[in-house]
Amino acid sequence: MEGRLSSRADLILDSCIMRLITVARRPGMISFATGLPDNSLFDTEGLRRAADEVLSGDDVKGALQYGESEGLLSLRKRIADRCRKEAGINATADRVLMTNGSQECFDLLGKMFLDPGDAMAVENPGYLGALQAYSVYGPRMIGVDLSDSGPDIRQLESALKEDPKLFYSIPNHQNPSGMSYSKSARCEVAEILSETDTVLVEDDAYGELGYRGRAGRAISSMTDNSVMTGSFSKIISPGMRIGWMVVPDWLLPKATQFLEAFCLQAGSFTQRVMDRFLAKNDMDAYLRPIRAEYLRKKNLFSDLMEDMLPQSFSWNDPDGGMFFWLRTPEGTDAMRLVDAAMDRKVVLMPGSPFHVRGGENTVRLNFATASDEDMKEGMCRLGKAASDVF
Amino acid sequence: MEGRLSSRADLILDSCIMRLITVARRPGMISFATGLPDNSLFDTEGLRRAADEVLSGDDVKGALQYGESEGLLSLRKRIADRCRKEAGINATADRVLMTNGSQECFDLLGKMFLDPGDAMAVENPGYLGALQAYSVYGPRMIGVDLSDSGPDIRQLESALKEDPKLFYSIPNHQNPSGMSYSKSARCEVAEILSETDTVLVEDDAYGELGYRGRAGRAISSMTDNSVMTGSFSKIISPGMRIGWMVVPDWLLPKATQFLEAFCLQAGSFTQRVMDRFLAKNDMDAYLRPIRAEYLRKKNLFSDLMEDMLPQSFSWNDPDGGMFFWLRTPEGTDAMRLVDAAMDRKVVLMPGSPFHVRGGENTVRLNFATASDEDMKEGMCRLGKAASDVF
Repeated sequence: MEGRLSSRADLILDSCIMRLITVARRPGMISFATGLPDNSLFDTEGLRRAADEVLSGDDVKGALQYGESEGLLSLRKRIADRCRKEAGINATADRVLMTNGSQECFDLLGKMFLDPGDAMAVENPGYLGALQAYSVYGPRMIGVDLSDSGPDIRQLESALKEDPKLFYSIPNHQNPSGMSYSKSARCEVAEILSETDTVLVEDDAYGELGYRGRAGRAISSMTDNSVMTGSFSKIISPGMRIGWMVVPDWLLPKATQFLEAFCLQAGSFTQRVMDRFLAKNDMDAYLRPIRAEYLRKKNLFSDLMEDMLPQSFSWNDPDGGMFFWLRTPEGTDAMRLVDAAMDRKVVLMPGSPFHVRGGENTVRLNFATASDEDMKEGMCRLGKAASDVF
Repeated sequence: MEGRLSSRADLILDSCIMRLITVARRPGMISFATGLPDNSLFDTEGLRRAADEVLSGDDVKGALQYGESEGLLSLRKRIADRCRKEAGINATADRVLMTNGSQECFDLLGKMFLDPGDAMAVENPGYLGALQAYSVYGPRMIGVDLSDSGPDIRQLESALKEDPKLFYSIPNHQNPSGMSYSKSARCEVAEILSETDTVLVEDDAYGELGYRGRAGRAISSMTDNSVMTGSFSKIISPGMRIGWMVVPDWLLPKATQFLEAFCLQAGSFTQRVMDRFLAKNDMDAYLRPIRAEYLRKKNLFSDLMEDMLPQSFSWNDPDGGMFFWLRTPEGTDAMRLVDAAMDRKVVLMPGSPFHVRGGENTVRLNFATASDEDMKEGMCRLGKAASDVF
């Protein structure tokens, strides 16, 4: 006998992200597919010391016991301070809620805001993991095309006429496109949104990974009606699963209640390890070599693409984050490249699943995960795969 | 400007659990209110060594990087082995899905099964934290009264006629009542459910805390149509946030997809710490002193109640877990006791919020959290509070 599932079981968007991580782990595979940060940049020794100090320190019982739903106050203070200083937003610790990774924020936001059929504006392309989290709640997603400098403002205005509950955006080094909003685009988006009751969800997962510092002030610094989400996954460790959201005052009581209902609280232990780690590191000094290394890898990857890929392919030049956005010629299907690459043991992430419409000729390329050697070998294989089909 | 919330914002059940944890932390407060395990039983040194070995071992990059949505295979194997050996269920590692604490399982199950208005059978009283997680999805909850030996079978049969999607139960040392299902009740429930497509959710959070070993085979060992949820929170550490569910084959693909959509995966780091900790401990030997200590505290608490509380109060004698279920005289309102106790700086958890109906004269008492000294002082104050109002 089988049970009967909810209507959400039909609504949920398929995502190949975690499947790709599994495929990419197979022996001999080289992956440009996933969103994994570079393993070699993890400060394993620093985190080991932080964990050791937490578990041999005065607050060890606190680290192993239940804590507050909102999260560890000292960590929330650090995050609020950083958000104020770097992103320019008016954050205080009491408005920061901790989660087990920022993916949980997207589930929470979908749950709190979206009834089936509600309109929701999303970037086109948009981050698939978040779109999957939202999809469970059955929104009608309205895509807003991205250019190199931000969303298509006319499309955004048109989308807002349909009264969306949320606009989900990644203004810094977007996943998947690597694109950042220009300063004027940020102002424009804030201004347009301020005349509506659409809540901006500003996903800042890559905000700290600008090679020359932050790409710009957070849009949330210019509008009150926004939730900013963040994560340590891309800069310290995704395996720790620590994310957060900065919520407006009017949302705080409900957001705390929903957070409690779905996980009671984020991990007491991992939050303390992260708090301790941050206490011992100046964030800017910590980030400097990471940003430099990603910039170096980006340049190497770019040179390799120039050398190995057909002239008919094009790509952007990101100023932060982990991704190139590759276009095969207009009218072609990039899945042919993805399949041919897989035959040659290179795992790619097609661009199409990130789209509400279009994007058949796009591929997301992660240049951050692979070692230099794998990157060279992988690009060599990818060049051959491209010759196979284009 | 404020955003517009979903209909779930009106559906979500209020829970005072995390609020009580906060109140209970205030200086001078003694708490019998929460579900916190005894701090002094945490193996802080063992967990410190396990964490240190993970972060200085060969797989440190794995611990800090993204992993599989399903969870760490070696840990899932250990859990499956234990479930087979102890609970008698036919578990294999591939049917075990890891979460950040078993609270997340309840959200996932609610999300996967419940559309607004769907019937769902719950124990009356039932575990408030889980009921809150389910409430978000708008089920019509049908209460099945509990006796000392299990659910009222007639009420369960009558509930099943309303075709509930789920029956949520805690057959071992239930939260809040401390009650366990008898062997015959387990068989009867399995038999009745096997004729329906109602999925049993068997919450085993307290299954390992039977003072004389397990209270009985899992009901999931007698029916295929069930999900068993488990947790290390009550026996090793809640602050680690590691829970799991054992799902039937037919549910596995969808459950994995929903898990990915809402958190990507449980923590790579904490799962490895737990795996390492378990590798170095024989579970039965590890549990022996914990069970003995909870039995000792239970007896002490019982003696203190005999001494201090009015004869008109009654309570059960649990054979496991952390809770006494106190009844003030029939027809009285136990909230008066809860309020009077708070005035005397003792935090109690009223029984009423655990109920779909009734329970006004009940209080859940946790005897596990407080030290002996606090327990004595707290019971002294509680006796005075009882005299104040009864």
